[in-house]
Amino acid sequence: MTIYADSFFLDSDLTDTLQNRIKRQVVEGILSGRFLPGERMPSSRALARHLGVSRITVSFAYNDLVADDYLVAQGRSGYFVSLSAPSGIQFEPPGDPVENTMDWSRLLAHRNGATSRIDRPVDWRAYPYPFVYGQTDPKLFDHQNWRLCALQALGRKEFDSLTSDHYERDDPKLVEYVLRHILSRRGISARPEHVLVTLGAQNALWTSAQLLLTQRRAAAVENPCYPGLREILQQTRCRTHVVEVDDHGLPPDAIPEDTDVLFTTASHQCPTNVTMPIWRRHQLLRRAAELGIVIVEDDYEFELSFRRSPSPSLKSLDDMGRVIYIGSFSKSLFPGLRLGYIVAPSAFIQEARALRTAVLRHPPGLIQRTAAYFLSLGHYDAQINRMRKTYQRRRQVMEQAFSDHGLTPVGEEDHGGSSFWMMAPEHVDTERLASRLQLRGVVIEPGRSFFDPKSAPKHFYRLAYSSIPSARIARGVELISEEIGTYGSAIDA
Amino acid sequence: MTIYADSFFLDSDLTDTLQNRIKRQVVEGILSGRFLPGERMPSSRALARHLGVSRITVSFAYNDLVADDYLVAQGRSGYFVSLSAPSGIQFEPPGDPVENTMDWSRLLAHRNGATSRIDRPVDWRAYPYPFVYGQTDPKLFDHQNWRLCALQALGRKEFDSLTSDHYERDDPKLVEYVLRHILSRRGISARPEHVLVTLGAQNALWTSAQLLLTQRRAAAVENPCYPGLREILQQTRCRTHVVEVDDHGLPPDAIPEDTDVLFTTASHQCPTNVTMPIWRRHQLLRRAAELGIVIVEDDYEFELSFRRSPSPSLKSLDDMGRVIYIGSFSKSLFPGLRLGYIVAPSAFIQEARALRTAVLRHPPGLIQRTAAYFLSLGHYDAQINRMRKTYQRRRQVMEQAFSDHGLTPVGEEDHGGSSFWMMAPEHVDTERLASRLQLRGVVIEPGRSFFDPKSAPKHFYRLAYSSIPSARIARGVELISEEIGTYGSAIDA
Repeated sequence: MTIYADSFFLDSDLTDTLQNRIKRQVVEGILSGRFLPGERMPSSRALARHLGVSRITVSFAYNDLVADDYLVAQGRSGYFVSLSAPSGIQFEPPGDPVENTMDWSRLLAHRNGATSRIDRPVDWRAYPYPFVYGQTDPKLFDHQNWRLCALQALGRKEFDSLTSDHYERDDPKLVEYVLRHILSRRGISARPEHVLVTLGAQNALWTSAQLLLTQRRAAAVENPCYPGLREILQQTRCRTHVVEVDDHGLPPDAIPEDTDVLFTTASHQCPTNVTMPIWRRHQLLRRAAELGIVIVEDDYEFELSFRRSPSPSLKSLDDMGRVIYIGSFSKSLFPGLRLGYIVAPSAFIQEARALRTAVLRHPPGLIQRTAAYFLSLGHYDAQINRMRKTYQRRRQVMEQAFSDHGLTPVGEEDHGGSSFWMMAPEHVDTERLASRLQLRGVVIEPGRSFFDPKSAPKHFYRLAYSSIPSARIARGVELISEEIGTYGSAIDA
Repeated sequence: MTIYADSFFLDSDLTDTLQNRIKRQVVEGILSGRFLPGERMPSSRALARHLGVSRITVSFAYNDLVADDYLVAQGRSGYFVSLSAPSGIQFEPPGDPVENTMDWSRLLAHRNGATSRIDRPVDWRAYPYPFVYGQTDPKLFDHQNWRLCALQALGRKEFDSLTSDHYERDDPKLVEYVLRHILSRRGISARPEHVLVTLGAQNALWTSAQLLLTQRRAAAVENPCYPGLREILQQTRCRTHVVEVDDHGLPPDAIPEDTDVLFTTASHQCPTNVTMPIWRRHQLLRRAAELGIVIVEDDYEFELSFRRSPSPSLKSLDDMGRVIYIGSFSKSLFPGLRLGYIVAPSAFIQEARALRTAVLRHPPGLIQRTAAYFLSLGHYDAQINRMRKTYQRRRQVMEQAFSDHGLTPVGEEDHGGSSFWMMAPEHVDTERLASRLQLRGVVIEPGRSFFDPKSAPKHFYRLAYSSIPSARIARGVELISEEIGTYGSAIDA
């Protein structure tokens, strides 16, 4: 039997090559049982004509399929579905599933509830004025070298590091780079046994909270703070104290006495961007020692200080082993990478590694090795350099636009980074403002989810410049200013 | 000032190219402050001579470094360290860290304790007779196509799926393939909202246990069972019932009445390889319905049934939405990939996704997309086909060797798979046996860690054939038989 060319169609996946789309058609036809072993495929000429592609494309697809034993070539007779092709299955589109016979609200022992995430449209890249935080700018990311490093990590001689299970150790090349070149810039001396590679900073925060907190212990967090941290603490069922930050970040005297674990973003407070001065850091460490508190330091975005060198990390001032340090490559490489690390005393790292093993074994080897190459070949530092220069330029354009259009960022920021923390007039609800601005092509991030939900003000918002081109900034800021202007002086429209 | 060629040396990393090793030297010199901005680099001729490499290699390295702004080229004067090169830091080898001022045994709220893992030497690949389970055979893995798929996933037009944070959805191409081509083979009809991609089966089991168990609930596990599962259950602090498996797997009548969640490997019991017959599956589902039990089905290794088609999954017989189904690509692709999935009612998947978001956000996009290409282009099926044929051959060789040397696997196995579950004479401690065999180049897996620690017998062991070449099997089995023979009839040597 011959399979006719017109039983083929090209799917609409334009991101893929024609050759792959043809191969996929054949494979799906065989697997779904539409094409049976021994059947003759249409000639490459006929199929090429039918699909409107070149004959060579079809030939290449067929040859690949022969290599994988879906097809066999029989000289001048053409191509046939292989008799030993992967066996056919019948594909039925799924019917209505059974859902409601089980009472999941009772069966689920733990509910994670609604997560408070920062609002942002899924298709934010399509907006002309995306003041969106923490996503990668394709123009700044060194995609080509990343790809080369991945290729190297995928090499045949790296097979073992790519494919094997390694519970006990992380990629030694990655750990070595973190120790020698990253931690040393933060004033931290550490050894391999003090480092655990995690699935991003989120996973590092989660792991630390799991190990240190129970429902009988108390955590203290900055207010405002990173919303993901609040989710994590909810899961541990610990009590949570909320400490208001001031112009110098977290005030040590305000930390309640019964606190067991303190979470801080000392070098660059999230989201206000305030840097804690060195005198206060010493004060904080003294108070933590008095109260016997463990400090978890989330040192995010330190690579992006372009205004002056980053102040040394809290951990570098810690001579008691009290600080659990968390770093990440999400901001400097890209968030989808999911690669971060914890630096802590080895007793802590040992337990963290055991927990990680139970939860997920280890971060994929390919990702670790690719990052190790990217770092050690200097691409990472070159990229940071590029980002710093670009962000510095954009920041100046932002400041100019603020002054032109009468917007004011909150507080002084002497560090750099990638965003401004903004305050609208008190009667402006920035969640509504954000919705209205989206209609005009502007994406801003309302500030409410950063605050303790019990007393969250509504008139703060964040403007990031890591994803918006310089040339769009002025008009974007103008639109925000205009939209705020449409709110009556004291009436929330 | 000129940097002299002899301040360079090539590190001993022979896995890397000469060009990269030269670049790394320069980058490290600049970052560590050994080479300062404005200093002149040795000429490519001088450096090539010093290192004993070709001049063109040095030139290529220099050109790459110029592109990344570590060096600048100044016509005939040569290369200089760029004035805007990433700034120097002083690298001090880490001194002795502070460790003992904090009482971590008190501060750590949760201890994960010693993990019971299957013993196997780290360098097992170097042993001539590795009867090691669940690791990838480089000869069977389609490395070249995996690499091509990764390259495609790393393409510029895939930038967004590679780099962005996606909390809410997994890679749609991957999910579609799992639904259409994998689950349909297991008799399962499901929709995208019923699937969550996880970091391997371990992460899927962990997530299910977290959502379903507390210290007030009871789990039941098969005995023997996968040791990682016991670790996971310890963390939830639930009560754990142990149910002895028989020749048909888990006997439903033996499940204690107060069980809330049952974990089973019905299609292919781990580690005994027994397949639960269809009549018992129905019996199991009836008993679970009577007692209101949720079943977690770990359907590992179903792709490797070569003796007959795999029996349909438990979930395919479940018309009440009672079964949480777990699949993985660890055995069929490779364990270091860390990619698995949960199939469950959407109410469950929603909570599982919220938990995953808090713990780790999402599995890296690159890994998901690479797997999606590998699957959809048919390489996965082709590879499974190859593995089945090879394993079937190896299994025959194993059986012949057992009969030649008087070893007996436990029970009948009509499924296929990649290992035998073995019983030595009762007075043989297989942990000692394993140590002694390692001295003779043979790696076996002692069985004790699979059993409930309270009553673990010592004379079982597992022999896998997924990583040992056929030609080595007979001699390996002979060595095992010889070594067992050296034990006195009733005296444990």
